[in-house]
This record gives sequence, C-alpha cells and structure tokens, in this order.
Amino acid sequence: MDGFDLVVRNAHVVTAADEFDCDIGIRDGVIAALGRDLPAGRKEIDAAGRYVMPGGIDGHCHLDQPMNDGTKMADDFYSGTLSAACGGTTTVLPFACQFKGQSLRAAVDDYHARAGGKAVIDYAFHLIVSDPTPDVLKRELPELIAEGYTSFKIYMTYDDLKLNDRQILETLAVARREGAMVMIHAENTDCIAWLTEQLLAAGHTAPRFHAASRPMLVEREATHRAISLSELVDVPVLIVHVSGREAVEQIRWAQGRGLQVYGETCPQYLFLTSEHLEGEDLHGAKCVCSPPPRDKANQKVVWDGLENGVFQIFSSDHAPFRFDDPQGKKAAGENASFDQIPNGIPGLETRMALLFSEGVLTGRIDPQSFVALTSTNVARLYGLYPRKGSIAVGCDADIVIWDTDVNVTIRNEMLHHNVDYTPYEGMHLKAWPGVTISRGEVVWADGRAQAQKGRGRFLECTKPLPARPKSERKLVREG
Amino acid sequence: MDGFDLVVRNAHVVTAADEFDCDIGIRDGVIAALGRDLPAGRKEIDAAGRYVMPGGIDGHCHLDQPMNDGTKMADDFYSGTLSAACGGTTTVLPFACQFKGQSLRAAVDDYHARAGGKAVIDYAFHLIVSDPTPDVLKRELPELIAEGYTSFKIYMTYDDLKLNDRQILETLAVARREGAMVMIHAENTDCIAWLTEQLLAAGHTAPRFHAASRPMLVEREATHRAISLSELVDVPVLIVHVSGREAVEQIRWAQGRGLQVYGETCPQYLFLTSEHLEGEDLHGAKCVCSPPPRDKANQKVVWDGLENGVFQIFSSDHAPFRFDDPQGKKAAGENASFDQIPNGIPGLETRMALLFSEGVLTGRIDPQSFVALTSTNVARLYGLYPRKGSIAVGCDADIVIWDTDVNVTIRNEMLHHNVDYTPYEGMHLKAWPGVTISRGEVVWADGRAQAQKGRGRFLECTKPLPARPKSERKLVREG
Amino acid sequence: MDGFDLVVRNAHVVTAADEFDCDIGIRDGVIAALGRDLPAGRKEIDAAGRYVMPGGIDGHCHLDQPMNDGTKMADDFYSGTLSAACGGTTTVLPFACQFKGQSLRAAVDDYHARAGGKAVIDYAFHLIVSDPTPDVLKRELPELIAEGYTSFKIYMTYDDLKLNDRQILETLAVARREGAMVMIHAENTDCIAWLTEQLLAAGHTAPRFHAASRPMLVEREATHRAISLSELVDVPVLIVHVSGREAVEQIRWAQGRGLQVYGETCPQYLFLTSEHLEGEDLHGAKCVCSPPPRDKANQKVVWDGLENGVFQIFSSDHAPFRFDDPQGKKAAGENASFDQIPNGIPGLETRMALLFSEGVLTGRIDPQSFVALTSTNVARLYGLYPRKGSIAVGCDADIVIWDTDVNVTIRNEMLHHNVDYTPYEGMHLKAWPGVTISRGEVVWADGRAQAQKGRGRFLECTKPLPARPKSERKLVREG
Amino acid sequence: MDGFDLVVRNAHVVTAADEFDCDIGIRDGVIAALGRDLPAGRKEIDAAGRYVMPGGIDGHCHLDQPMNDGTKMADDFYSGTLSAACGGTTTVLPFACQFKGQSLRAAVDDYHARAGGKAVIDYAFHLIVSDPTPDVLKRELPELIAEGYTSFKIYMTYDDLKLNDRQILETLAVARREGAMVMIHAENTDCIAWLTEQLLAAGHTAPRFHAASRPMLVEREATHRAISLSELVDVPVLIVHVSGREAVEQIRWAQGRGLQVYGETCPQYLFLTSEHLEGEDLHGAKCVCSPPPRDKANQKVVWDGLENGVFQIFSSDHAPFRFDDPQGKKAAGENASFDQIPNGIPGLETRMALLFSEGVLTGRIDPQSFVALTSTNVARLYGLYPRKGSIAVGCDADIVIWDTDVNVTIRNEMLHHNVDYTPYEGMHLKAWPGVTISRGEVVWADGRAQAQKGRGRFLECTKPLPARPKSERKLVREG
Repeated sequence: MDGFDLVVRNAHVVTAADEFDCDIGIRDGVIAALGRDLPAGRKEIDAAGRYVMPGGIDGHCHLDQPMNDGTKMADDFYSGTLSAACGGTTTVLPFACQFKGQSLRAAVDDYHARAGGKAVIDYAFHLIVSDPTPDVLKRELPELIAEGYTSFKIYMTYDDLKLNDRQILETLAVARREGAMVMIHAENTDCIAWLTEQLLAAGHTAPRFHAASRPMLVEREATHRAISLSELVDVPVLIVHVSGREAVEQIRWAQGRGLQVYGETCPQYLFLTSEHLEGEDLHGAKCVCSPPPRDKANQKVVWDGLENGVFQIFSSDHAPFRFDDPQGKKAAGENASFDQIPNGIPGLETRMALLFSEGVLTGRIDPQSFVALTSTNVARLYGLYPRKGSIAVGCDADIVIWDTDVNVTIRNEMLHHNVDYTPYEGMHLKAWPGVTISRGEVVWADGRAQAQKGRGRFLECTKPLPARPKSERKLVREG
Repeated sequence: MDGFDLVVRNAHVVTAADEFDCDIGIRDGVIAALGRDLPAGRKEIDAAGRYVMPGGIDGHCHLDQPMNDGTKMADDFYSGTLSAACGGTTTVLPFACQFKGQSLRAAVDDYHARAGGKAVIDYAFHLIVSDPTPDVLKRELPELIAEGYTSFKIYMTYDDLKLNDRQILETLAVARREGAMVMIHAENTDCIAWLTEQLLAAGHTAPRFHAASRPMLVEREATHRAISLSELVDVPVLIVHVSGREAVEQIRWAQGRGLQVYGETCPQYLFLTSEHLEGEDLHGAKCVCSPPPRDKANQKVVWDGLENGVFQIFSSDHAPFRFDDPQGKKAAGENASFDQIPNGIPGLETRMALLFSEGVLTGRIDPQSFVALTSTNVARLYGLYPRKGSIAVGCDADIVIWDTDVNVTIRNEMLHHNVDYTPYEGMHLKAWPGVTISRGEVVWADGRAQAQKGRGRFLECTKPLPARPKSERKLVREG
Repeated sequence: MDGFDLVVRNAHVVTAADEFDCDIGIRDGVIAALGRDLPAGRKEIDAAGRYVMPGGIDGHCHLDQPMNDGTKMADDFYSGTLSAACGGTTTVLPFACQFKGQSLRAAVDDYHARAGGKAVIDYAFHLIVSDPTPDVLKRELPELIAEGYTSFKIYMTYDDLKLNDRQILETLAVARREGAMVMIHAENTDCIAWLTEQLLAAGHTAPRFHAASRPMLVEREATHRAISLSELVDVPVLIVHVSGREAVEQIRWAQGRGLQVYGETCPQYLFLTSEHLEGEDLHGAKCVCSPPPRDKANQKVVWDGLENGVFQIFSSDHAPFRFDDPQGKKAAGENASFDQIPNGIPGLETRMALLFSEGVLTGRIDPQSFVALTSTNVARLYGLYPRKGSIAVGCDADIVIWDTDVNVTIRNEMLHHNVDYTPYEGMHLKAWPGVTISRGEVVWADGRAQAQKGRGRFLECTKPLPARPKSERKLVREG
Repeated sequence: MDGFDLVVRNAHVVTAADEFDCDIGIRDGVIAALGRDLPAGRKEIDAAGRYVMPGGIDGHCHLDQPMNDGTKMADDFYSGTLSAACGGTTTVLPFACQFKGQSLRAAVDDYHARAGGKAVIDYAFHLIVSDPTPDVLKRELPELIAEGYTSFKIYMTYDDLKLNDRQILETLAVARREGAMVMIHAENTDCIAWLTEQLLAAGHTAPRFHAASRPMLVEREATHRAISLSELVDVPVLIVHVSGREAVEQIRWAQGRGLQVYGETCPQYLFLTSEHLEGEDLHGAKCVCSPPPRDKANQKVVWDGLENGVFQIFSSDHAPFRFDDPQGKKAAGENASFDQIPNGIPGLETRMALLFSEGVLTGRIDPQSFVALTSTNVARLYGLYPRKGSIAVGCDADIVIWDTDVNVTIRNEMLHHNVDYTPYEGMHLKAWPGVTISRGEVVWADGRAQAQKGRGRFLECTKPLPARPKSERKLVREG
C-alpha cells in the first residue's frame, strides 16, 4: 500500500455512477488504491475542491487520415493528440480508412506508420470499411478484430466511402459473428445528390446551401434504414453524430423496442446552428460538416437526448481542415460551391470543456453523466474498458482535474491543434481542464503542455461492452 | 492505511458503473480504502471469484404498518429486516402512514415506536400522505422533510388513502418547493370501483377477478394523469410498481419529452401472471396485489424497461399478510370476495436473488444495472447517497457477496419473514447472497443470520439526487 | 316526375363523397329527384356555376340556455336560428341542460317551452347530464333516448356541470346500452382550479390569464381520461372543441388503436389565438371560451386534423354573451377577474363561411370534406341522417347555394345574432351563402332573411351512425 | 326526364357517403336521373331490397403482362375482364410495363395491342416505370400523362423492375410536375436478396420460406423510405399492398404529419396468413405473393386500417399464374426453390364479394366505406372520377346489385378466370354480385356472364383527385 509514484490528494472523484472524496494512489501508471490518507507518493498533486474525473476518450476523431481529393487533414498524431491532452482527453480513436480497392490490412499498416512515434496519449484505431470484398469480410475483418481492431465505421453517403444496403448487411453480419461494434454515418446519399444537383442548378452554391442539401429527413431516413438493417442482422449498432429531432425519434423508437441501438452526438449539434454556415467570403465553410448543424429547437432535443438516454457517447468528430489553405476548406478555390468544401470541423480540444461548462455547471446533465458520455461508455463500447474509462483500482491512471473557477474565452490561438480557426471562437466557458494525467504522467498542467511526443501507446481493443450509464436525468430541483 | 476492522479480500467489485478487482478495507463501519494488497484487517473475508456488490436497498416495503380494517401485517421491523438481511438487503424504506384525520407527525412518532430496538439493518421512512390538510401542507411536511423524511407516497386509489387531483397538485407543490421525492400509486379508483361492482353483481367473486377489476388501462390512465399533474407542477415523480406495456409507454413518452418521471417495478411483474390468481380455496389470494400481475407479453415489456431506461428502481413492495390467518388473506373469511382480500405479497428476501439469478446470470441485464436498480438509484432518489448505495471510499460498508455456483429452490421454510407462503415457492435460482455485511458487520453468512436485533439505525434522508445509471442495455452478443 | 314545388337548376352539387351537375327537384319539402333537364317546378332557382351543398348542421351551439349565475344568453331560438339560417345552416342542435337537482325531463320540457314558436329552421336537442342520479340513469335517460334525444354532453369541468369519473362511467354505460352518442367537454377541473388560484393570488386577473389557467396539458389529460373511460365501457364518444396538438395526439392515438373516438373542432381553434384574449378594458373577454384558443402552431395541427381524419365534426360552439352588458361578459363588472367572465363566443352565422372561404377556396380541404364536417357527419352521429345531411333523393331539401365571387369583410352589424360583437370582425372572406333553403323554402337570399318565425320543427333523433367520410386529404397538387 | 334505356327500380343506393332509396334512370350508358317513381325505361330491373352500388374498380391487377422469364400470365384481357365483371367489377387498371431498355411508348403500344378487342368492361392503364432514362423522364412520361396515363407504379424490389432511390426521386419529381399518381411497391430488395441467400444456403427452399425471406421489417423499411422520398419531393404517393402492422404504422405516422401518403391493401392480407404457404408438393406456391401474407394479428391491424383511415383503396393485385403449369407456378419445376416461384395470386373475381361478405355484412366496415374503398377512391386517385366511381347524375352507369341472401362456397370452377385454383377455395360467403351493369348494359346476371367480348373501352385518365372518404369507423353499437 505504499510506494506510489503519484498521489492525487483530496480528490473529489466522479465516476459514471459515483462521487466521493479520497486520495488516488498511482503506481506504474495504474490506479493502485483509493482511500483516505494514503501514504505519500513520490509525487503529489493536491486536488482539494476540484472535480477529478476519468480522462476523456474521444471516440470519433480524424487525424492524418489519407485523403484522395487533394485535401489534407491539418492534424497529425502529434498535434492532434497534443490538442486532445490539453483539452482533457487521454485516449483517441481515429480511423484507419480503407480506400476502395485497398486491403484493410494495408490501411491499418499505413495508419500505424502515420501514428508511430507521434502520439502523446494512448490511441486505438477504428476501421473504416469502404470496400467489403469477400476477402475483407471473410478473412481480413475477422483477423483484424482478433488483433484488437474491434470497431468499424460504415458510411451510407460519400461516393468514395458509401456502402449499399447489401454491403451493410454483410458487414453487420461479420460484426455479429465476430463481436465488433459498428458505427454508422446515416445520411441518404441519393437524396443528397439529388438535392445538390437541384441547388447547384438553381445557382445556390454558397456554403449555407450545404445545410439545405442535407435536411433532417435525409438523416432520419438513413437512421431508420440503419436500424432496420441492424435489426435484421440482430447486432448492435451505433448511430454517430446525430443532429436533431427526427433522427433522435428513430433511435429512441428502436431503443424502446428493445433493440441495441446506440447513439452519439457532438458539440456542433449543441452549440452551432445552420446560421453558422452563413457569412461572406466562404467563411461559412468553417462550419461545413455532415450532418449539418440544425436549429435551436433541434439543439434542445439533442440536449434532452443526453439526459434521457438516447445518447451513450459524446464525441468531437474532429476533422481538421484549415480554412485559409489550398489543401483545406478552400481546396476548390475561393468560389467553391458548397459541395466542393471538405466536410469537417475541429473540436478535439474543446469537446470536454464545452460540455462541462455548458452541461455540468448549468445543471443540464450531472457530473456522472458527463463521465459516462465522454469516457466510460466510450471505453465500454469500443473494448477499452476497464483499462480505460474510469477511476477505479486497476485502471490506467488517465485523469483530468478540472478548474471550475475560471473564465475562459475560447480563442483559436490558445488551442494546440493545427487548424487556423475554431467554430467556438469567442465562447465564454466557466471550466477548463487544469491537469491532465496520462498513465500517471502529467501531460497538461498550469496551462502548459508537458507531454513527450511519442509517449502514447497503441491500444488493442477487446470486444465491446454495453454502454453504461446509458443516460442521465436533470438534477432534481433544489428546493 | 491500516487498522482496518475488516478487509474483504480479492473482491470482484461491481458498482452502478464499474467492475474491478481489489480488496476493500473497512474501518468504523465505513469503506476506508479500495486497493490491491491492502494491509491485514482484524477480520478478513476472502471473496475470491465472487461478485461483491453494494447491499440492496429496498425502496418500497411495508413493515408493521398499522391497519384499520382488522388485518395485520405479518412482519414487524425485526422479522422484516432480518428477512431483508438474509436476502442481501442492507437498508429498507418502509412507510409511516398517515390515517385520514391523523397528523403526519403522529404517524411518524408511532412508526418510530414500532421500529425502535427491532431492526437488524438500517432504515429510513417514507411518509404516506393521505390527508393533506393545510396544516400538513404548510407546516408538517416542510418540517418533516427538513428532519430527514424527504420522500412520500400518494395513492390514487384505496378509499382510506386516495387523494383527488387537487390534493395531488397541492402535495406535489410542496415536494417541488421543499425538494422531496413523490412516489405515486397510479390506478384510477373510480374505474376499479365501477368494475368491481359489475363483477360482484355478476357473481364473479373469486380472487382471479381481482385482476379483471384492475385492467391495464386503469393503470395507464392514472399514470398519464400522474405524469400530467407532475408536469403542471414541474416536479419529479416516481411511478411505483409498474406492471406492463401501457403504463410503460406513458412513462417512456414522458421521459422522451424531457420530463423527470421515474419508474419502479417489482419481481411480481417479472415472474407472476394473472394466472397465479387462480386456484381453489382462495389460494389465488396469495398473489393478490395491486396492480395485479399481467401476462407474459407484459413481463417482456417490463424486462425491456429494465434495460432501456424506463425503470430506475426495482423494489419488492413487500406487504406481508399470512394466507391462513384471520388477520391475513382470510380476514374476510374463506369465502371472501376478491375485493375483501388484503392487497399485497411478501418479497423482501427474494427480491435480490430473483433479479440476480434471472436477470444478471441470464444476461438480460448486466451486473452494473443490477446494482443501479437495487441499490444506487434507490439511495440517490431517496436521499441516502453517498452514505448508502455504492462501494466507494466513504460509503457505509453495506456489502453483499454473492454465491453464484448454487442451486437454490425457493421454499418458504428457508425464508426469515413471518409470512406462511411465498409466491415464488419452487422456483429454481442459480444465485443467492452468500454474505451480507451491514456497516462492516456480517449479518448473514454461511446460511445463518448473525444479526443482532436492534442494531439497525434510523437514517435521516437528504434531498433526492437523480437516478443513475438510468438504464442498461443487453450485453453485446458474444461472437 | 313532375309537379315539383321547387327546382334548383344547373346545380353543381357536392355531397360528402361526390360532386356532379344536375337539377334538383323538390316536392313537399323533400328532394324528389336529381337529374338533368328536370321538368319545370312551381318555383325555380338557377344555380349555374355555383356550389350547391347540404345545409349546415350546427351540432354544438347554445341558445337561450338557462343560466344560474346572473348571466343571460343573448340569443334565443329566434335570433339564434335566424342567424344560423343567414349563415347557411339549416339545422341546429342546442342543449337542454339539466341543473343539478333537476330532472332531465324538466330540463327538456323547459327547453321546449323556450324553443316553441320561435325557430326559423329545424332543431333537435342534445341533453346535458349534470346530475346522473339513479333515476336519471335508469329511467329518464332511456326514456328520453327512446323519444328522440339520442345524444348528450357531459362535462369534466365547471362546478355546476362536471361529473366525476364514476358518474361518467355510469352515464357512458347508459349510452352503450341504449345506443346514444356522448359528447365530452374534456378539461381537468382540478388543474384549472389550482392554476386559477395561483394566478389570482399572483394578481394575474386580466382576461388573457384565462388561457394560462387552462393550458394544453389540462385538455390533454382529460382527453386521455375520457378516451380511457370510453374504452373501458366500450362505447363511442365524441371529444368536443379540440383546441390543439396534445389533445389531437391523444385522439389520433385512440383512433389508431381501433377505438371509436370522434373529434370535433370549431372556428376559434382555426382562426383565433390566445393573443385575442389580450387588450385593454376587458376587451379580451370577447374571446374567452374554453378550451382557450392556442397559438399558430396549434392552429396548424387542427387544420391538419380536418384533413387527416382526426375530426369528424366542425361546429360553432356558439355561446352568445353580449360584451357590454351586465348580463354578459361584464356580469362581474368592469374589473372582473378572468375566472368571472362567462365562457363562450358567438359563431353560428360565421361558421360555414369561415371554413368555406379559408378551407375550401384555399385548397386546404376539399368541398366534400366541407360537406362531411359541417353537415353529413353531424347528421349521422346525432341520428338525423338520412333526413338531414345530404343532397339525395328522400332527404329534406335543406340546401345552401354558395356565392364564391364575393369579397366579404365580416362586420358584426351584418350578422343576425343578438350579440354586440363578433370575434372575426374585419376578416376578409371570399365566400358567403347566397341562398339558404330549408325544407324547400328559401329562408335566406339576396342578402335578406326570408324566414318565418316559428316555421322550424323539432326533430326526433334516431340512433347515431358512424361519421363519414371521416377525413379528407389535401388536394393533389395541380401540375 | 323520360326515354330511359334502363331503369333500376327501387334501388337501395349506396355511395361513398350516402344511402338512399330511389329509381335510377339510365340513358346512353350514363346515369340520367335519380328519383322516386321515374318513368318507365325500355328495360327495367327491380332491385327492391337489394344494395345497389357503384361497380367495383380494381386499381391493381395484372393481365396478359409480358414476362421475360419463361412464365406467362394466365389471364388476358378477355378472361380477366370477364372474371372481373362476374365479380362485380366494372373497370380495371392493369399495367403497361416497361422492360429495362424499352421505351414507355413501346410498352403502351404493345399493351394496347394485347387489350384491343378483348375487354368486356372498361379499362385504363397504369404505367410501370422500370427504366427512367432522361428521355423517359423528360419526354415520354409527360407526353403519356398528357394522353391519359396519369398513374404509374415503381418497384423497390425485383431485379428487372426495381429503381434505386435516385431514380425514384427523379420519377417522383415528374409526377409532381405533371400531376400524376405514383404507386410504390415497398420492400427492401437488398434485405430480401441477403435473406434469400441465407435461407437457400441453409437448405430452406420450400415455398413457406418465401415469407421468411420478406419479413415485415423489409416492408417497413421500404415504406419509411418511400414516404421520405415523397416527402422530400413533396408529392403524393400510394403505398400498395400493405400487409401488416409495421408498414401501417409508418403510413399512419406520415398521414398524421400531414403528408399525402395513401395506402392500399388487398384480400390476401385480410384472409390469408403465412401458413397458407405451407403444404406438400409445392402447394404453398399457390399463395406466394409479395409482400407475403402475415399472421392473424397483422390481419387485425389491416382490418383496423380499413376503418380508421390508413387505407383508401382495396385492390386485388390479381397476378394470375396457373399452379400446375410449366409457364405458371411450376415454371422452375416441381422442386423449385421459393425464390423461383412466380409471385402473385388470382383475385379479380373474389375481391368484391370477400369484402362485402366479411366486411360489410359482419359490420366491420359500413357500406359506404365499402364503396369508397372498392370504387370511389380508386376512381378519384387514378383520374377516372366522376366518370367512374359513383352513382350520381352524369356518371357512367356502372352498377352492381348485390345478392345478400345467398350462401356461396367459393370453388374455382365457378370463377371465370383462367387460373386453375383460387386461394379462397372453400370459403363460405353470404354475398355475391347478383347483377353487374357496365355503361347501362347488363354484363352479369342470373349467374351467367352476358358480356360481349371487346365491348370494353379504353379510358383516358385525368389528373388524380384526393381519396374520399378516406376511412370509415365501425358501426355504432346497436343498443
């Protein structure tokens, strides 16, 4: 019970279910003991009066993902994971993306090469299956799942990624047989293409028409279809980046019928609206992502879904493209039409603080829900639990200590990503990670990154566990 | 970090969110440390290979409740709490019931007199408000809430207990202002009375007509109304003992709209059906309770509700009446009509094992959900958290160590309650509490009760917290 | 085939299902033939180019109803039926209202005395059952139903009228046994009383707080309860004056489950909002009715309900109180609080034109739906079909010929009721009844009433038939 | 008013909204007058005591449709229309089906060649669009719509017919612009293919696995998608041959949201279940159709949908293949697997009597609903109204006089189609058409067909009108 490398003293620990005061004793990067008056550690951090929570796990982010359209992601594994760590995230799960015609193995190998020696925090890979050939389905996927790549994403839109229903069924069948988790990007690709053609024909090319080209029903239909396909195969699925009411209703309907349908949402659906796609000189391009942000009423439904159990996971969907950059948002030039703008917005570093400040501190969600949504459920659904995702004996000592007596105005220059803007520029927050600890090492403290490049380790994932706690309810009114 | 009174060694601890292996160090009845290789305690229990969970909290049971109709509850605070302890429950919340015309204070005082010196485990009181006079609403309830009676139950049926809508509104308004939790027994009393009259007039007097007199819609209507009244007052409510689909749909609809509506169900709605009300010689009376058990299809919906977040709490609604007893089920004689049979069935001792065996071990719910439903959420919603409800540093050391390698056939003679039957006679279970620990003292082990009468303490409740985790989903299929 | 008293020539006839061009031959007040080139009648009207429809039946209006609170209805059977006739309505069904303590028979006899010799068009009586004593239930209601009073209304609110759930059940049971139609005013009376008390205590006394005292959920809850009670008794019911989304959703849910639940709405829920309750000097009192008008979004839902089958009947709920009158809206003085203002607005004369102009001429509903909602379904549900409600051989020749090439600005001085205002003052309409024919006699033409006082006959109703067509859909887009 | 060619005397006429007694005077094939005591006609039929209704319009049947898989439809325009006439149907709308690669015009021309000189009753064509090339969309469809082919069907399954979502959108856009009605066969083709492959791989080849290969969710998903596509384009659609609950729920949900989504069902979903696909020696093949019949619970939902407005149209989907025939059900031999059996069952002649006997005479639907579902709505939605679809002045004299005092046991030998079985063999009915009149000519009477081959005329359709009455409710209980 002694010989701790680090003791976090007087912590107000929050897990996905509990809240208690104790010291945290860390040895060899692992939480070795929770108790009062633990013996001294070689290093000590006093957390008195502060929330101490599991480090964030960003279950949906894109880093240095190879692109075949002339664009380039702004963040590699170094800047991306650094940014994550400074924002309270201690694990990331970016995507090893198969190009059509490519083997999955090649995509994984390539992605390891990109990641190697760069990450400052731990990481695992999701796969993106864009070409489910018989060999992929029968050999590669089972092998890769067995090796620790236990989650994959499939797209119902984007020409170079989308699967048709038959391919989805076959891929889901592999997931069922091998025990993997499938993430689904649910938008009806034909509807988008048809609407885009109509809009362009009418001369509606500005970024704001991106939203018009992907209305809510396009997402609703695909969500219903994804649910139906998973129901047919009888396998859990996770609908990612859910943007508003109509998709929420489909997911909640499925959950109510006892189907294992999980939901993810992202900061952009809580804090942005389609009005952010407006603006002169292509500035709306900064908020072009898919599905697009909706409106205030839909934001409300998404907030409700964080409370009433629709959503298990809150991710960034960080997809970093610089704005003023010929490989970024302006890849197609200053006069690009909306369909030529690369999709995606940055958010790795701001995800945790946005939800803590505007969710926990306002009482919309309680602290345990925050932990569940940003860490525990992510670990469980993607096979990282119990190594990651909690503050409990035996877990990796991935910890974030929160400052909640701060006034932070978000400015892009304070962020550590390599993107030249943030969609949240100027927002005022009341909370920010004070200290981030990864496997017992402080990687962010006193406003300074202290993480050594390459210290992050690749994580082999086990099979997914159910999310928990699935949902949270508002705090009972204080009398 | 030493001087433990008791160390539970090699525990596989499950909380409402987590699952980890460690030793549990207990000092002064409180969990002082969780860690690997804790120093020796004065006493040690080896839990290697066994689930170690928070002791059960039965949030809905009736013990020695004064009756004014010639019946008498079979269990007092001794037999009741003994039975609870032997079944893995370490805290009970029975009801201090106001008679019409009586002050709430008098009811509470009387109930303390009944409880004093008898309980073997800790207990708190819910109030039953049956006569919300201005004095009760303006003075007594606020005072009692301030003193630690922070939850109360209201009835929409039973002539001597029921409140009308206006009274419910006024009582809910107090709960909102003072921060209390309101439990609602939701059945439409006029419908029941009308149907009962029709049935009796047709000569349908057997116990099985109890179910016909309270069909699902009677519960559905009252549930909708209870939700509406709580929505109007804007205060959380808990719908107790929900029996099937139509009520579940109302609650889920409310939760989906962002209302703070909680749900409770009980073993009788998972394991009994209305067929249990049949049988010769009044034997059906043994399973007369309200709402009545429904059918298999409704059982399925209730099971689903344990997984998909409709229910936060799983209670026994233990209401002990002996069968072959002139103060029990036969109070109105051998030929009593169904409406003369006292409502209620025993279940304190079997609640935990039934759900563990048939829920957790079958994979219908996961272990964390079990903990949430049987303990953590109960503690949170009724103001006992964090003192009760978890295995975490600082919590009371209320712990149950499960035997899961057993074959138990339920027989009433093995139970410790004072009722002469159990509705679950003959059921085969695969799990039973091996050791129950209350504030660090073993009260049940090796098949023997070891609890000292009167050691249980009264608990003052604080204000309710939201339930967590609200729900669980089925285990992901194993590949 | 000759000897017609009247031939309406070149009519574009619309029924609840059809639309065709022909002459209408009328003999002895009855439609004797439909055909092209009918022989000449003693009198002829050329309807070339005009819609010719069944005369309106107003299934919900209050005329000379005795009040016991110092107020007085402004319209008796003369001014009321005159106003109706001038607005295209040829049959009215006002209410013979039982006072508590009074026999139903006495109420009916009194009401006949009030009606006798005054009406200019035909009329039947609904009963209002406010005191369902055993004698009323067992003797009076069955007798009256047998005599032709086959519909009655029950109230869930208003202290002098409301029935509790038990009384409703018993009254519904009579309706089921005897084959009567029950109209239900669905608002939760306790909620209204509680809210009213809160509002008054806060000094909120202006007319606009009438709306705040009866929010949508108050109507939704009572609607759900009314549906539940009717489901229990297994008898059709008609929910009257439905005001918006939440009640519509309950009715549609019931209809979808195969229950015989009918719905009625009124012009005030299509054309007024709660903003009409605002205004200086009690002017908002002019639009005080219950349920109160809601908002634009709810208007939309009510319009949709006219198209998609939620509603079978469109009535006026004409309840005439003069504004500037000590027996009218100002009965409690110039400073009356909202709860002292008599409930009700006038609308007999404007009902048909409002819906024709804003519904049919705009394409929101088609002409056949208009006929169904304003006439055929009313006749069917209230036992007047086939005598009333259609243009078919054998029906009474109750006909309205529409002018649709007009520009009408509604002004109270052009109306024939005895109320000193209309809520629709200043509205511009494109249609108005050109000719109203009652049993073959012209009662309104050329902008002049031509109806002889007392010519209207009392109608004995038969048992109700199902409504038809239940609904209409929007006109298919014109290419 | 005289010179009638035919007078139907003492008719109890039922229209989609009304019911009245009169004589019907017919001149030049058209209804010239309705009245009592009409002058004598050259021919007279006494209909005293019998229901007289508009002749049936079968809006969905396949006759002599060219097949490209070696099968051949058993009925051509002669046997098909003869069979229809003998079953009370006076108009049929079979399909001019475009093969992929073929022009629509060629399909129409070919189909006229097949129809010419054969039909005994009137007919119009739907188009089947299987290859929506730019020329089809921009030129052929608009031209054909203008020429009177105003409805077309699109398939979401069947390899040689199916359109993808993009093609559906483009075809719907034409319908919107030109004002046509689109019928959609909604089943997810990829799901069916995947399931079929699984079933065959498992050796499940018997006809009953046809049902397993097309479970309800396959239809539900496609229905949701069809609704979504039509919502996007903002155009009415008609979902054909709806088989059960889950599809019904989607349609009802759409209708409740104000979308113009219509529904059709067929006798097979009221009277058959998947058990009819069982049986030795391929006998189950007789009932192979798509979607497959479901179970009793789904039959109930479809019956409810006839009452509560989900369905506007009741068709046969007559698709005639002989059972014991190498061009029929056994085209792939005696050991054909389920996926090789031609889809479709006969039903033109039995459609009307089945619904009249089991729907109207049992009180499940009322006579007016019967007329609406079998005739009026079909005429309206497919642009044949008011020429067809009612008994009103100016309509074609297409009339059926019902015998309702009969006991009919359905035997294939009594039917006039060219199929060697009927799925309804042995069913007992209480009603059968006694006389069928087409344009004033008796074509079926006294149990004998009296129709001259080739007398039927091709009908050019106008633009669709909304269905009416959309729905019916059960008859009010008789007291």
